[in-house]
Amino acid sequence: MFDLKWSAAEKKVARRAFEVALDAALAGIMAEFKAKAAAAQTASEMWALEDYLRRRRREIDERFDYRYSQLPFVFACLIRDGHLDETRLAGLSDDKLEIIRNFLSRMSASSSP
Amino acid sequence: MFDLKWSAAEKKVARRAFEVALDAALAGIMAEFKAKAAAAQTASEMWALEDYLRRRRREIDERFDYRYSQLPFVFACLIRDGHLDETRLAGLSDDKLEIIRNFLSRMSASSSP
Repeated sequence: MFDLKWSAAEKKVARRAFEVALDAALAGIMAEFKAKAAAAQTASEMWALEDYLRRRRREIDERFDYRYSQLPFVFACLIRDGHLDETRLAGLSDDKLEIIRNFLSRMSASSSP
Repeated sequence: MFDLKWSAAEKKVARRAFEVALDAALAGIMAEFKAKAAAAQTASEMWALEDYLRRRRREIDERFDYRYSQLPFVFACLIRDGHLDETRLAGLSDDKLEIIRNFLSRMSASSSP
């Protein structure tokens, strides 16, 4: 997507932001899953959790794509979904932050009525 | 497997025994699943439950096969696995009970060292 140069310091910031977001996303799924498992009363409610886990795992695999060429888009999605606070990206170059914000504004525009 | 005749009364006994065994098997899986879900600490422990549920659901689908031609073998397996007490089958004809016991003895023989 982008042929940006990432300094060693930027890679460290990116990796840390990515991992914090991943941990947050996984913790959210874990909490939701445990609540659903505890609340299941019937076999069909229990079997439905197989599909729930499969979908959540796929979403995680798709969203958390740590390729530098994809990271600006990945970070924009994570901010939009509430998994990442933009302040975690402090230390990235202005051009990268600009690209991320640009994605974000296009996402909000496309989700508006 | 067998071309046995099932009277209306036998069908009622068989259906009831089958349902009691199915309920017991599902309750056992539900209890184990809830304990595993509650105990999961990591994402990989949580994702492993997707596979756990898939395997258990397949086992249930395979074991609980309510075709009259299969029932003697199905009942023998359910007794062996502790999901069914043989007394639940009281009311079936002697030839059916004999076939079920025959399966059971062959199962125990084949599982002995």
